[in-house]
Amino acid sequence: MPTIFFYGPKLDKEKRKEMIKSFTETASRLTGIDKPAFVVYLRESTPENVGVGGELLEDRLKYR
Amino acid sequence: MPTIFFYGPKLDKEKRKEMIKSFTETASRLTGIDKPAFVVYLRESTPENVGVGGELLEDRLKYR
Amino acid sequence: MPTIFFYGPKLDKEKRKEMIKSFTETASRLTGIDKPAFVVYLRESTPENVGVGGELLEDRLKYR
Amino acid sequence: MPTIFFYGPKLDKEKRKEMIKSFTETASRLTGIDKPAFVVYLRESTPENVGVGGELLEDRLKYR
Amino acid sequence: MPTIFFYGPKLDKEKRKEMIKSFTETASRLTGIDKPAFVVYLRESTPENVGVGGELLEDRLKYR
Amino acid sequence: MPTIFFYGPKLDKEKRKEMIKSFTETASRLTGIDKPAFVVYLRESTPENVGVGGELLEDRLKYR
Repeated sequence: MPTIFFYGPKLDKEKRKEMIKSFTETASRLTGIDKPAFVVYLRESTPENVGVGGELLEDRLKYR
Repeated sequence: MPTIFFYGPKLDKEKRKEMIKSFTETASRLTGIDKPAFVVYLRESTPENVGVGGELLEDRLKYR
Repeated sequence: MPTIFFYGPKLDKEKRKEMIKSFTETASRLTGIDKPAFVVYLRESTPENVGVGGELLEDRLKYR
Repeated sequence: MPTIFFYGPKLDKEKRKEMIKSFTETASRLTGIDKPAFVVYLRESTPENVGVGGELLEDRLKYR
Repeated sequence: MPTIFFYGPKLDKEKRKEMIKSFTETASRLTGIDKPAFVVYLRESTPENVGVGGELLEDRLKYR
Repeated sequence: MPTIFFYGPKLDKEKRKEMIKSFTETASRLTGIDKPAFVVYLRESTPENVGVGGELLEDRLKYR
C-alpha cells in the first residue's frame, strides 16, 4: 500500500517505465513489502507552474 | 476545513457529482463538521503516468 | 490503483473504518475498478496547523 | 528544502510570478531558511474537478 | 476553495499565524476569491524525514 | 526542483538514507537535472490510518 508521488518534468515512455520500476524495486526491498502493493504517480509540472527561489522557473531557465 | 483528494481515472460529470456528494456526506457525518467546510479535489491520473507493481499501468492494461 | 487522501481531524477507530469502507465502495462503484485496488490515507491535521480564512483554526475555535 | 503547493484557479503569468515571490519571501523570513531552498508548485484545478460543500463547483458557480 | 500546503520545519504559534495570514491575503488578492474560502495546511517535516540532493537532511545539517 | 513524496511505513535511518539516495540518483539520471535540485519527503503512515481494499490496514494485518 505504499504510494510514491513524483512532481517533475514530462518524461518519455521509456524513462517513465524505468523510473516506476526503479522506485518500486528500491522501496519494496527497503520496506519488505511486495511490489504489487506499490503505486507510483508521475505528476507532471511545467516551468510555467513552478517557482524556485522565489522566481518562476520559466524565467529562470530563459536567462541561463 | 477538511480536504479530500482523489487520484484516479477521469469520470463523467454525473459520476463526479455523485463522488463529491457521497464523500462529503460521509465525511461530514463522521467528523461532525458541516458540509460547507469540505473541499474535494478530483485529480485525474492517466495510465501513462501511473505505475502499479513496478510497471506502467498503460502496459499492464494492454496485456490483459 | 486509485488513491484517496483525507486531511481532517483525528477520528476514533470505528469512524476510520467506516470512512475507509464508504469512500472505497463509492469510488469502486463509480470508477468500475475493483475494491482491492484502492488505498485511502487518513492524514490527521490539528487546529494548530490549519488556517481557515487567514486565521489559525486553533484561534477561531477558541472564540466561538 | 521547504515546498509549497497551491491548488486553485489558473492564473496569468504576472500573478503566478507574484504569488511565487510573495509565498517564498514570507516563508523564507518566517523559517529563516534562504530563498533558493524553496520550491512552489502551482497546481491548477478547474471547477469541473472540485467539490465544495458536497456540490460540483462548476454547478455552484452557474447558479450564482 | 483554494488550498495551500506548506511542507517545512515546525514553527512557533506567532509564525504559523503570520504565514497563514500572509499566504491567504496574497492568494485572495491574486485570485480574486474571498479569504474565507482558503485553507492552509502546515505539514511539518523533520530533518530525519527529508532528503536534499540525495542525502538525509539530518546528516547534511550535522556537518555544516 | 523535482520533488518526491513517499507515503509508507516508518523506516530506520539506514533505510531512509538509502531510499533518498536511490530515488534521487534514479530521478536525476532520468530527468537530466542535477541532484542538488531534488527533495524527497518520507511521510510516515501507520496501519491505523491507511485503508486497503476498503478495510483498515490495522485489521487486515491482524487476521493474516
